[in-house]
Amino acid sequence: MSRSEQTDLVDRLLDGDHRALARTITKIENRSSGYRELVSALHEHTGDAEVIGITGSPGAGKSTLVDKLAKTYRDRGETVGVIAVDPSSPYTGGSVLGDRIRMASNVGDMEVFFRSMSARGALGGLSTATSDAVKALDAFGKDKVIIETVGAGQNEIDVVRTADTVVVLVQPGSGDDVQMLKAGILEIGDVFVVNKADMSGASKTVADLEEMIHLQGDPTSNLDLGHHGAGGGFEKPEVADRPDENEMNGEGEEGWTADVVETIATSGEGIDELIETLAAHREFLERSGRLTEKARTRYAEEIRTLLREDTGALLEGEIDRRGGMESFVDAVVARETDPYTVADELVEPLRDCLERDD
Amino acid sequence: MSRSEQTDLVDRLLDGDHRALARTITKIENRSSGYRELVSALHEHTGDAEVIGITGSPGAGKSTLVDKLAKTYRDRGETVGVIAVDPSSPYTGGSVLGDRIRMASNVGDMEVFFRSMSARGALGGLSTATSDAVKALDAFGKDKVIIETVGAGQNEIDVVRTADTVVVLVQPGSGDDVQMLKAGILEIGDVFVVNKADMSGASKTVADLEEMIHLQGDPTSNLDLGHHGAGGGFEKPEVADRPDENEMNGEGEEGWTADVVETIATSGEGIDELIETLAAHREFLERSGRLTEKARTRYAEEIRTLLREDTGALLEGEIDRRGGMESFVDAVVARETDPYTVADELVEPLRDCLERDD
Repeated sequence: MSRSEQTDLVDRLLDGDHRALARTITKIENRSSGYRELVSALHEHTGDAEVIGITGSPGAGKSTLVDKLAKTYRDRGETVGVIAVDPSSPYTGGSVLGDRIRMASNVGDMEVFFRSMSARGALGGLSTATSDAVKALDAFGKDKVIIETVGAGQNEIDVVRTADTVVVLVQPGSGDDVQMLKAGILEIGDVFVVNKADMSGASKTVADLEEMIHLQGDPTSNLDLGHHGAGGGFEKPEVADRPDENEMNGEGEEGWTADVVETIATSGEGIDELIETLAAHREFLERSGRLTEKARTRYAEEIRTLLREDTGALLEGEIDRRGGMESFVDAVVARETDPYTVADELVEPLRDCLERDD
Repeated sequence: MSRSEQTDLVDRLLDGDHRALARTITKIENRSSGYRELVSALHEHTGDAEVIGITGSPGAGKSTLVDKLAKTYRDRGETVGVIAVDPSSPYTGGSVLGDRIRMASNVGDMEVFFRSMSARGALGGLSTATSDAVKALDAFGKDKVIIETVGAGQNEIDVVRTADTVVVLVQPGSGDDVQMLKAGILEIGDVFVVNKADMSGASKTVADLEEMIHLQGDPTSNLDLGHHGAGGGFEKPEVADRPDENEMNGEGEEGWTADVVETIATSGEGIDELIETLAAHREFLERSGRLTEKARTRYAEEIRTLLREDTGALLEGEIDRRGGMESFVDAVVARETDPYTVADELVEPLRDCLERDD
């Protein structure tokens, strides 16, 4: 893509051309040549959208809820963009036909821009791609951007946390509440939705959730969100093991107690209340300064992620130029060198060079 | 530490001085100045130890099993080193008193060198530290090195995989087998031990494990080791999401079907059979070329991990030198720049410099 094609694409996107928006997100998802410059050019037009992340276990009714939410926002005169992210799918996104069908049948309104994205090769790459796609929707002028994840594992949590407000969907009587405790998802939810609230067990699920939220907010409680959950200890590592995530969460959320909202997404019941709760959280974020704080943490994290990826690629290139990793490994196996010496040899030139520039 | 102190420490370690060994591991754990040169110097003396990793949920009886295993090896005339790793503990290791007490009371033999290590600040740092500590024990001349993890989460799995042979301990009737499926631990076990085999439910646990192993080995089976386990989908990400791990595992293990061994660690029953199974796996690794292959993968991974850490530190220094991350974030918030541009500005000089050196 030439510089002028790029400028043209950005201009058309800013002018409200949905096809330009779709093309931009495809470039972001595929990390096509020139996508970085696109995102850079969009950045100055971002910062106005309200970004809502929605996660929850499969079957909890996320798609239906998201569609109803989008439709209700539209009825209220707001523009909406939806990005549905599936980290477990190896297929590339942009399944245009599927997207269009869903968009048309459920919402019937082109103003709800719907787009799916799936897992890319790179570790952590999906959070970056999602965050970049959100920027495209934000710059386009969507009032609300909804990030919907298909699953609810750690990758999904990472993705959904790029939102300002995180909604966690729970299905009554599913045992999701206990699972959530283990997965550390309780800590990331700003709003909990017990969907299918007409199912038996719904009120117990609401009560359980409220108790857990209450215990979590109480510094004297012994609620253990750590490693030693019930059932044997084969859980994956907790959020607390990942210092960079704590920055994004942790005590900063002080002053907001997660709300539990009951919905029946299929009939639309509870959607208005959910929208009010989302607005209340947004208002809290703005009033408390948390919105700015979250954005700052996110930008720092984005910069660090890009630095990791870029220097990683740079060094892989350098390794190749020096005969490839296999030849380094050969030398280590032959005890001619060792991993630390190899790393020093590769990194020293970079260090020297930074010092030379000072 | 001066160069001559360092050479002296290495010499004493190679001469069989346990205090020099302990001091070396402390330096490795704390990443004290000079630890890299120490590990580099030890590398050429490594490669002879058989490294066994032991994991399993808390309460399965790991410590007792490890002690019995170590004692039995000693009775057979082999030297043994044990590193017990607790990724969930924030405390620094080297709890010498605790170690000595355990070593003395359970084994009563100074030749079993026992050492605990706990979580360090850096993500992934514990695997590196463990692997470096193993090198110290290997260079020292220990015939068997046992890595014992205290928990059984993803961090523990990462740690235990630095071993050549991975033993997974299961407690009968604990539901561990189902949990293991979810956590992807089934895929990493070379040997499964059903400990406390005199407990009710032991034979069912053995049968369940054998069935799972059988299904896993069968390419036509639909055994889903992925995201969609029973119970709601709040699991953490699977091994399959992490390409670098697949290299270490995956189809390379072809030709070895995991064995299930029953033990009663408290009485020592089954320990001889376990030792035979471990020897059989070792023999398989050597015969099939997998031992070399594993070492090569591990060295490549070590190099890449060090490169990540070193360039990360280098760039953090550069960020500080340029006014700190906060000032970059200020500029991003003010829309004067954006994360991609910031990353480019920081990485470009490195790229230029590598190209200049060509």
